[in-house]
Amino acid sequence: MSSYPQETFYQTSFSPSSFWAKRRSIVRKNTLHTQLEILKSTGRYEAFRLKWHPAYDDGYKALFWDSDVAKWLEGACYFLAEEKDEKEDKVIDEAVKELTEMIAGAQWKDGYLNIHFTIVKPGLRFTNIRDLHELYNAGHLIEAALIHQQHYKNDLLIDPMLKYVELIHSIFGPGPDQIHGYPGHPEIELALLRLYARTGNMNSYELAKYFITERGNPHGLQGQHFYLGEAKQRNEKWGERPAGDAWPTANAFWYQQAHKPILEQESIEGHSVRAMYLLTAVADLVRIARTVKPNSGHFEAYKTACEKLWDNMVNKKMYLTGGIGSIAQWEGFGIDYFLPQGKEEGGCYAETCASIGIMMMAERMLQLDLDGKYADIMELALYNTVLGGMSQNGKEFLYENHLASCAERPSKREHWFDCACCPPNITRTFGMLGGYLWSSNVKGKDVAINVHLYNSATLSLDVDGTPVTLQQETDWPWKSSVSFTLDTTPSLNVTIRLRIPSWVQASENGSFFDLNPLPTTTIKPVKSYITLLPEYTSTHRGSPITLTFDATSFAPRFLRQHPSTNQNTLTIARGPLIYCAEDVDNDWVQDYFKSVAISANSKPKESILHDKILGDDILTVTIPGIKFGEGKYRAVMKGGFPGFQVEEVTNIQQENLSVVFIPYFYRGNRDGRGHMRVGFKSL
Amino acid sequence: MSSYPQETFYQTSFSPSSFWAKRRSIVRKNTLHTQLEILKSTGRYEAFRLKWHPAYDDGYKALFWDSDVAKWLEGACYFLAEEKDEKEDKVIDEAVKELTEMIAGAQWKDGYLNIHFTIVKPGLRFTNIRDLHELYNAGHLIEAALIHQQHYKNDLLIDPMLKYVELIHSIFGPGPDQIHGYPGHPEIELALLRLYARTGNMNSYELAKYFITERGNPHGLQGQHFYLGEAKQRNEKWGERPAGDAWPTANAFWYQQAHKPILEQESIEGHSVRAMYLLTAVADLVRIARTVKPNSGHFEAYKTACEKLWDNMVNKKMYLTGGIGSIAQWEGFGIDYFLPQGKEEGGCYAETCASIGIMMMAERMLQLDLDGKYADIMELALYNTVLGGMSQNGKEFLYENHLASCAERPSKREHWFDCACCPPNITRTFGMLGGYLWSSNVKGKDVAINVHLYNSATLSLDVDGTPVTLQQETDWPWKSSVSFTLDTTPSLNVTIRLRIPSWVQASENGSFFDLNPLPTTTIKPVKSYITLLPEYTSTHRGSPITLTFDATSFAPRFLRQHPSTNQNTLTIARGPLIYCAEDVDNDWVQDYFKSVAISANSKPKESILHDKILGDDILTVTIPGIKFGEGKYRAVMKGGFPGFQVEEVTNIQQENLSVVFIPYFYRGNRDGRGHMRVGFKSL
Repeated sequence: MSSYPQETFYQTSFSPSSFWAKRRSIVRKNTLHTQLEILKSTGRYEAFRLKWHPAYDDGYKALFWDSDVAKWLEGACYFLAEEKDEKEDKVIDEAVKELTEMIAGAQWKDGYLNIHFTIVKPGLRFTNIRDLHELYNAGHLIEAALIHQQHYKNDLLIDPMLKYVELIHSIFGPGPDQIHGYPGHPEIELALLRLYARTGNMNSYELAKYFITERGNPHGLQGQHFYLGEAKQRNEKWGERPAGDAWPTANAFWYQQAHKPILEQESIEGHSVRAMYLLTAVADLVRIARTVKPNSGHFEAYKTACEKLWDNMVNKKMYLTGGIGSIAQWEGFGIDYFLPQGKEEGGCYAETCASIGIMMMAERMLQLDLDGKYADIMELALYNTVLGGMSQNGKEFLYENHLASCAERPSKREHWFDCACCPPNITRTFGMLGGYLWSSNVKGKDVAINVHLYNSATLSLDVDGTPVTLQQETDWPWKSSVSFTLDTTPSLNVTIRLRIPSWVQASENGSFFDLNPLPTTTIKPVKSYITLLPEYTSTHRGSPITLTFDATSFAPRFLRQHPSTNQNTLTIARGPLIYCAEDVDNDWVQDYFKSVAISANSKPKESILHDKILGDDILTVTIPGIKFGEGKYRAVMKGGFPGFQVEEVTNIQQENLSVVFIPYFYRGNRDGRGHMRVGFKSL
Repeated sequence: MSSYPQETFYQTSFSPSSFWAKRRSIVRKNTLHTQLEILKSTGRYEAFRLKWHPAYDDGYKALFWDSDVAKWLEGACYFLAEEKDEKEDKVIDEAVKELTEMIAGAQWKDGYLNIHFTIVKPGLRFTNIRDLHELYNAGHLIEAALIHQQHYKNDLLIDPMLKYVELIHSIFGPGPDQIHGYPGHPEIELALLRLYARTGNMNSYELAKYFITERGNPHGLQGQHFYLGEAKQRNEKWGERPAGDAWPTANAFWYQQAHKPILEQESIEGHSVRAMYLLTAVADLVRIARTVKPNSGHFEAYKTACEKLWDNMVNKKMYLTGGIGSIAQWEGFGIDYFLPQGKEEGGCYAETCASIGIMMMAERMLQLDLDGKYADIMELALYNTVLGGMSQNGKEFLYENHLASCAERPSKREHWFDCACCPPNITRTFGMLGGYLWSSNVKGKDVAINVHLYNSATLSLDVDGTPVTLQQETDWPWKSSVSFTLDTTPSLNVTIRLRIPSWVQASENGSFFDLNPLPTTTIKPVKSYITLLPEYTSTHRGSPITLTFDATSFAPRFLRQHPSTNQNTLTIARGPLIYCAEDVDNDWVQDYFKSVAISANSKPKESILHDKILGDDILTVTIPGIKFGEGKYRAVMKGGFPGFQVEEVTNIQQENLSVVFIPYFYRGNRDGRGHMRVGFKSL
């Protein structure tokens, strides 16, 4: 059983009033429709009809329109597969069908399928694998085709994609007449592995394996790095850089995670979305390779590589919001501990898609190693940078997720972006969200369910005709306790593993959780999961088992950053949520909260803010702050060099200022002036 | 009277045992000779003989050898003009003469003079003004020729340079057949203005004016930016970047301060040495233009531009060591307040030449506006990043002046650099140092002397045959008081202005200085200079006038950085000196002092470290520090997201650790392991 969220999502039904059900409903009701309209109005929808569009005039703008359409189509299918609102769904369903027809109709006889290289630059196919997103587009089309087949139970989209894969497989590979290359923007690798898992198509598997193992080979093309040789074949000068300014220096192959073979990479580098898509595939290759017959080679060293790069990322290159990528120029990773909060401080990108990529990689790592350290970060990204990438009404988005806004980068949402990766990426992620909540394994009569995320929902499995349902009831992320009810027959042995988040606080008696009814044996978390064995679950079939974390875990707490970040700041968190302040609740703010300091000793006060759009009660946190005037920051001549020495804190403009914090995901939902900050100077 | 340090330096004689005399002696005794040997062994010395050298094989390495030789020659002349040690001097004197002959002999019939474009790439002269340092070399040769003429009282070097200037003047300018360009690396502008001041040659003046006013013109060459048009003429692709990786993005003309006209530049950007050389010339143009007849246009707006860019630099883009340039890639300025201490923290370059450039610009600004804010920074750069650029023995150098070393960039000195700008730049700066100490103005019988820097030395002026000497006696930078003795005839009215440094502390009675004998009128600083009027100076002719600052000014004090730098650090300063710690005095250090914190409330203890090389007593400062172990920095799972929340300070490895600090300039003079830090975490 492949257990991809993209395939298992339908086993989950969300309780209608739950936190995520509300958000998924708005995506179905609003996002799918407004994005369809934008796909149409921008020319993307009709693009597969292969007519000229004015946007093509610049020669580059439509380079990855294929992927924009594919991600929407993928997202649409998840919702169609699951939701029942015939009137709403009809429009979406018809669009998916029309798109499928157009996509299939755009395929060349030999299998090739790509808008840009068919209509804008015919004749140049596969001449710039490094920069031009050709295989990236193919990957997203494959992903769309996989859910299309699953939902429609026909092969109208997957057949063209299998044909395209055959073409790609014939062109790329180690053979003397083949291209020894691999995509500059990984994506097809993870899609090919899923295609193999679905169809058993060995060419898909071999192609993914080739792309992953060949990547970064210093001698791939006639003794030199493939990207150097490919550039030479295009008659580029040595050191010539791609269009756009993503490469700060010549031959910056680390931008594409191709500076050395993956197994030799010691730190996570370059474009963060590319890194996450690549490592998602690498982790999946490790898992799949174990099962492929005949044995196709040992890939366990790639698991170590994934772990090393994951740890480097999480411990040294990730914002406490779950954002990654501190450098805007290459939309990616900086050096260790370089995590400025915003442009004015020297960086911060934290693309929404990159945090979606974190979820993808974390989910695959959990398949290799059930360790809460992956689920913790998956949850962190989901509740903060991924959820925050979309507005409450599902119609506006954020591409970058800064931790502090400034005049040049106010905190404001947009309806769409020229480079439109993020909005439909959120759509498809929310579409398959049920698949992220839990994963399951069945071996004969033994059923194991691993619960990663808490939300009121029901998982329904069919074990050789025997139904198993596990229902969870909770007010997560606002409140602590979660009740589980298992329903199945005594013939099955059901093991349930529940995640104990790393941020949970110990109660006064020192325990991190409370289980009711009390088990007869001591339950200790292993890698942050507790195991409810069949003896226990069978005793309590049909009646609730309640997991409760201490109430302090769902009270505001203060986070500091690693000292090496040079961020002497405090951030408020509560449960899985990171908080920020914005001007809507703090109308006095004029300087993006730069001059406001808070203390970790202050007593936070909670309030409720009722959001009308989703009928949500948003918990806000108020704490006192101090606002410093000029004096705090004024450089003084006396006693120091001008411009450097700073006066003691004497010029307090306002004490006991009330600073109201809201969840980070909720920012930019009410008309404001764009002032927002996560980390406040620490008193 | 032009009053350039390069011309007035000879009026100053340093008292032999003074701080700067010792250092200037070592330059004459060691530096001039070792650098001459290196010029010879690397091929630079013979380069003007125009024979092929293996270093030319790569096509680029000798691009600015002309300037390396010229700066050494310039420095040699300052010392020859002043020092009397015939045996030592003979070698230098002969080398200067031979070089002069070789340089003159390398000139083309039409006046052209450049090693690279004569021997390595003939035929390409003036085709890449932007990148290839052609006019930069010319500028340094002109500077060498100016002091050569002054010292040798012949025109053997200045004549060829005047001929070269005629050629450049005929080629560059607004005419239809002229090149509408300006040098990518400014330098010739300031040299041309000095050449005009010396010779009255209007073509020199007009050429400097053209280079300055044309710079950054968006429509200079056929309606487009000159650098774009020039690149097109070289058949470069649009957006193609120069060799090397200095440009992070395409068409990054801000690297050369040419992104817009100088008058429109709001912040200081790009390569920091280029910026300083350019603005030195701009400030000088403002001053010179006031005197040129017929009136050549108004340039007062350029004064405002210089002030704006200076203030932006000093207040927001300068390290408290006097270093500028936080970004290694373009050897220059980052965004406001982005001042990481070292590579490991995300940047720091602070090139020695850039701090020499600060002194140059500051000195010119003082000519326009006698404001201590310029002299403060001139002094800061001189005592810390400039002096620190050379070892005590005058044989080893630092190119970059980081504030914290790390494994990748240990604090270690080198004998020379492939890109050899810094070592001979220090040589010439120390050669003319007397010209930086004070400046003077004579109008008829009125003589004004402005004292900018304190050191035991004597200024000797000749006012129409009447001698004026002003002697200062002090233990600066170690001790506070300075005694002045004026000697002249009663026929002259002598005004003396003395600088009150901004870092001077008030004494208990609130005054910042003490003057003895007491003047009858109250003396208040205007722009940080106090004025001793002729009534006062004439009364005390021949007897000492003593200026004393409160002793607390010469006790260790703690500096903080601007909060917007995110540097929660403390730095020790004392008088004009910035302090640092290195492993030689703190043998326990293993982590570049990263885990050591100090408190501003601790009581510093002073000691004497006797340096044998110069017979110097170096004042060291010892304060207690605390070293934290893993716990201080360990990211914890409990209560925070992994990798982010940090435990409270519980794991103190060592309390009351003695941390010994030495002056920053003194670092890297004793064999050490390369651990060094200026800013310590603040407790």
